Amino acid sequence: MAILKYCPECGAAVELRLPQDDHRERYVCATCGTIHYQNPKLIVGAIPEWEDGRILLCRRAIEPRHGLWTLPAGFMENGETAAEAAARETLEEANARVAIGELYSMHSLPYIDQVHLLFRSQLLDLEFSPGVESLEVALFTESEIPWDTIAFRPVKFTLQRYFSERRNGSFHFFSADLAPPTVKPDHHA
Amino acid sequence: MAILKYCPECGAAVELRLPQDDHRERYVCATCGTIHYQNPKLIVGAIPEWEDGRILLCRRAIEPRHGLWTLPAGFMENGETAAEAAARETLEEANARVAIGELYSMHSLPYIDQVHLLFRSQLLDLEFSPGVESLEVALFTESEIPWDTIAFRPVKFTLQRYFSERRNGSFHFFSADLAPPTVKPDHHA
Repeated sequence: MAILKYCPECGAAVELRLPQDDHRERYVCATCGTIHYQNPKLIVGAIPEWEDGRILLCRRAIEPRHGLWTLPAGFMENGETAAEAAARETLEEANARVAIGELYSMHSLPYIDQVHLLFRSQLLDLEFSPGVESLEVALFTESEIPWDTIAFRPVKFTLQRYFSERRNGSFHFFSADLAPPTVKPDHHA
Repeated sequence: MAILKYCPECGAAVELRLPQDDHRERYVCATCGTIHYQNPKLIVGAIPEWEDGRILLCRRAIEPRHGLWTLPAGFMENGETAAEAAARETLEEANARVAIGELYSMHSLPYIDQVHLLFRSQLLDLEFSPGVESLEVALFTESEIPWDTIAFRPVKFTLQRYFSERRNGSFHFFSADLAPPTVKPDHHA
């Protein structure tokens, strides 16, 4: 969990303590007593499909995984729905407009306190371009997808299943839990 | 969003500011410069079904909605998967053991910065009892469900759909977005 040193409420020092009736240690302010909970974050994105079946991917201009390809996705913000988050991230990272469809995949990544949600979506026009967090944005057929340079496993697994199910003619939401990657244990997805 | 007054990193005062390349105001430390992001929280729970078709509900011993009925659910914790969170909450609130099945519903509640996930599940035995956050725990047939005293709309909508789909013989994951309740605008779900 993220390290907390000072109380966001009163500025005094905090300590790790087991609150009454709780089952895990929390950061608790030694002065004002406020308990500071920390919880997993949602990463939300889209699978933008153009009318010819190609999928839009972004090449990352930021860490982690600078230079690798991914679906447009990012941290869900307060005040928005999951679908709105997916559309916003697509607009920010690819300057692309999508109609968000059904939720397609959910991955739990407990080792980094994240849950990833990816939605099916229709790309509405071809006026896309790299946002500030992207080096390139491009459309790919299944065989063109750069499978060896996909940034995150939930994106790779979701795309693999997406193409497989599309060939079979129907999509079904799926969820999966991921353990830390064994090859590159760098605390990313 | 939650109010942040002092920097958790250095204890100095924070201010609301638009960071470079960002699209919304964040709490930023005026002294050390750390940006403190705030994001939606996941509420995760189970729909525990006994072998005779009855569903386990808990009557809340805590606010919000003290005294009303709900499915076992609560804030997802760091270090666990969504399915583990659903099983843990069921154990804590109802001392009940479940086998977690497929994700059944997702509700976005942007006005309180929450996403609710409810999983289908099998109740494994009848040795349940109220946890510290519950007044009562009981099994209900569809006609026995206390529809007028269900604590949260995502729980009510999920149970309605669950029984309807069960009658038709197949379950399908669904998601929905909720606007603030109009009848009792009390900033809860």
